[in-house]
Amino acid sequence: MDIFIEPIGRLINEFTKLPGVGKKSAQRYAYKIVNMSESDARAFADAIIGVKRRVKYCKTCGNFTEGEECEICRLRDKKTICVVEEPKDVISIEKLHEYKGVYHVLHGVIDPLQNVGPNDIRVKELLARLNTDGVEEVIVATNSDTSGEATAMYIARLIKPLGIKVTRLAHGIPVGSEIEYTDDVTLTRAFVERKEL
Amino acid sequence: MDIFIEPIGRLINEFTKLPGVGKKSAQRYAYKIVNMSESDARAFADAIIGVKRRVKYCKTCGNFTEGEECEICRLRDKKTICVVEEPKDVISIEKLHEYKGVYHVLHGVIDPLQNVGPNDIRVKELLARLNTDGVEEVIVATNSDTSGEATAMYIARLIKPLGIKVTRLAHGIPVGSEIEYTDDVTLTRAFVERKEL
Repeated sequence: MDIFIEPIGRLINEFTKLPGVGKKSAQRYAYKIVNMSESDARAFADAIIGVKRRVKYCKTCGNFTEGEECEICRLRDKKTICVVEEPKDVISIEKLHEYKGVYHVLHGVIDPLQNVGPNDIRVKELLARLNTDGVEEVIVATNSDTSGEATAMYIARLIKPLGIKVTRLAHGIPVGSEIEYTDDVTLTRAFVERKEL
Repeated sequence: MDIFIEPIGRLINEFTKLPGVGKKSAQRYAYKIVNMSESDARAFADAIIGVKRRVKYCKTCGNFTEGEECEICRLRDKKTICVVEEPKDVISIEKLHEYKGVYHVLHGVIDPLQNVGPNDIRVKELLARLNTDGVEEVIVATNSDTSGEATAMYIARLIKPLGIKVTRLAHGIPVGSEIEYTDDVTLTRAFVERKEL
């Protein structure tokens, strides 16, 4: 005799496929669904199906879009391209309401250990854009881990010879945090990249 | 311009309806769905719909079941009934593989502050069962908070006059935990209910 009846066990199993969701959380989520109204559960299921059916990738930047080209690519200044690893990074930057340029989503990073080379991410597509849009600066906003840094270096080496400015986000002590609790690598970078007041 | 395109924003919104899921987790879950295969997303949506369509409540104990009566009610010894607040409590007890009796799920607790009285939970149904199945003991396993305790007291007062043994789960120091870190109320109960060795 299984502890869960089949439909509940099946839904729990589906929920555990979500990132960071363990058995216990999945069980709570499944119970929530059981207690939802029929129409609420239907709306939930429809939202899942809808996302698969309606979300496409922008043919220019690779970000999520419903049409051919995303709103950012259609409306914004194309002189600056911010290169990120994943669509979620676009959201993090858009939330600031600071950056006014366009994006380029690599959909991955170069990572030899995972057998991901430059041809497995959207580097070619980035280079193709540089010839057309009158790009003046490429901001490489890949993550600050080994593969993110390696990818940034690789991209910089490709683009600099084209006479386009390549920048990288600054490293340093997080705003509002204490020196005592800043890790050594970050603190060292903060020293090296110190600014004159 | 919204930060999220509509189908993704909608799915994020659905995920935030799950217990303990904030904006950030919901976003991660939604992205996971976007990156799933069409058939995996379809299976997920089907599991949600399936739970609503196939899960019913056992006519006897009120636990989840696919048929009329749950497997536990059909197969197990009916002399002992364990009264719990919610179906999830059945799972917690079943996991022990210790208890061999049947259950009664109240689907709530008496809580005057929330306007929940004895008639709003399955107390009547519990009393009805006591007349039929030759019940010898009712174990009241409601939670150990104010409303759980109050509900247990209420049920005990109703059942004891029928000559049926009513018991409550033991309170005390959690196994493996230290006296120093046991809260005062629990430690007091552990003293009062101390056992001879």
